[in-house]
Formats: sequence, C-alpha cells, structure tokens
Amino acid sequence: MRHTISILVENRFGVLTRVSGMFSGRGFNIDTLNVGPTQDPKMSRMTVVVQGDDTVLEQVTKQLNKLVDVIDITDFKEGGFVDRELVLLKLKVDSKTRAEVIQICEIFRAKIVDVQADTLTVELTGDEAKVARFVKLMENFGILELNRTGRIAMKLG
Amino acid sequence: MRHTISILVENRFGVLTRVSGMFSGRGFNIDTLNVGPTQDPKMSRMTVVVQGDDTVLEQVTKQLNKLVDVIDITDFKEGGFVDRELVLLKLKVDSKTRAEVIQICEIFRAKIVDVQADTLTVELTGDEAKVARFVKLMENFGILELNRTGRIAMKLG
Repeated sequence: MRHTISILVENRFGVLTRVSGMFSGRGFNIDTLNVGPTQDPKMSRMTVVVQGDDTVLEQVTKQLNKLVDVIDITDFKEGGFVDRELVLLKLKVDSKTRAEVIQICEIFRAKIVDVQADTLTVELTGDEAKVARFVKLMENFGILELNRTGRIAMKLG
Repeated sequence: MRHTISILVENRFGVLTRVSGMFSGRGFNIDTLNVGPTQDPKMSRMTVVVQGDDTVLEQVTKQLNKLVDVIDITDFKEGGFVDRELVLLKLKVDSKTRAEVIQICEIFRAKIVDVQADTLTVELTGDEAKVARFVKLMENFGILELNRTGRIAMKLG
C-alpha cells in the first residue's frame, strides 16, 4: 500500500540522512519527499510518500519514534486530510498551439510564469490526480522539463 | 552563501540517502529538500537549498558528479530562473477575524481549501519572499499548523 507519512523533526544536523536511511535500509523506495521549515524555527517537517509492506512500515515507524530527533509521526489514512503538490512545467509551444495550451491552463487554474517564442513555463498546484491529468494532457504538446515538489498533507479541522 | 541546487538522479534505491549524506558529511545543513518524479519515470529530481562555504560546496558538487546515479547538477545563480514553493497553513479564526483573513488570502491569491468554525486551511504558492510576507501577516491571527514543500526551481526560456 501507498503511505503518506508526515514526520516532525528537530532541525538538527544529519536528521534527514538518518530518517531517509531508515526507509531505504528496510527496502522502501521513497516516491516523493519534502523537507521544509515549520512555524517553529527549531523544527522541520518531512513528508514522505512510500510504497511497501504495511507490517514492515509499522516497524519503521516504531524505530523512527525511538530517534531522539523525531518529535511526532502521522500516517495519513483515507479521508480527513488535504494533500497538495506543486509542479513547474516547461512546455513546447508554437504560434498554433499556444492559445490551446493557455486555454487548458485556465481550466486547471495553472499560472503562466514565463512566455518565450517556443516555450511556456507554468506552475500548477493540486492533488496527485489533478496534477496527473494535467501532465497527461500536456504530453500531447510536448513537455521539455518537469519539476515536482512531491506531496505535502495536513489534517482538516 | 545560500544555494539552490537541482540534481537529476536515476530513480534507484538509496540514492536520496547517498546524496543527502554527501551534504551532511561535509557539514552542510539542508534548509529545504524536495524529491519528486520527472517526465521520465526512470529519473527523479532533487532540489536542495543549502547554506555554506562556496569552496566546500564546489567540492561536494564534484563528488556528486562522480556518483553513477547522478545524471546532471544545476546550481541556480541569480536571475534567469523561476523558483516556487507551496505552503499549507491552518489558521485560527473566529467570526470576527474570518473576513479579514479571507481578504488577505484573496490579495495573495491563496486558495482556501477548508473552513471550520474556528479554523481556515489555505494553500499558497510563490517564491520564498512572498510566502514569508504571507506567513508574517498570518502570525497576527494565529498559525496552528504550517507545512512547506521547500523550493523547486526551473531555468527560464
């Protein structure tokens, strides 16, 4: 099963390497990962999307909880949370396709951040499914570059 | 100096741990880090924001280039690129402050993703300076939770 795990850690040297090593050491491949600051400058939050065996993941979570730098772990289950990712895309356009690409961007509320004669750079936010639909549509025009943040998540209410 | 480094890697087991270990082993603290898929399912892109000595960073970059899993490294310098990050915020509101918070969200083009009686969950994208201004304003109302992806960047044109 696919899991979205949010780990609140002390903003200390080498924590990232220790935590990511915990997953790779147990054979988990990390699909996406984010590390960023929180409202407290002493803490960072890591959001990891991993696939693998549920029982093994439970063991990894227990081991992570034992690390002195780990403050809190949340495994986001179905429902009750919002998840988002951000993607930057550089698209191939010409005078014929530009209008069509811009139209699709408007429907998806993607923001155009740069226009050149033969490229269009856009940013899009949404959940994974929305991003996947947009990327699939844009493949018809030609994606020159794609850069995705990976998922972050937050409990509702 | 602060550096934004984009590393294109083969989507192979343990690459993340090896690359992040290269930075922490040299005493670099990672401010933010993202790992996500690219348009090619065999490759992932890591975007790292680090602070530290330029000469040492050059050595780290050279060592990274020697790793078989590393395909390409870009150190984004001033100008000529766009950088964005995504932030999810859970804000404390009541019947008196809600309208004011929503108004500020509109100015910043932040999207409201959830409303409860006493909270408002919003998403915002922008460069670091814009995100910092928004967060600073929202501190007056009360930030209950903050989750940031960290920076991704792309060359223009």
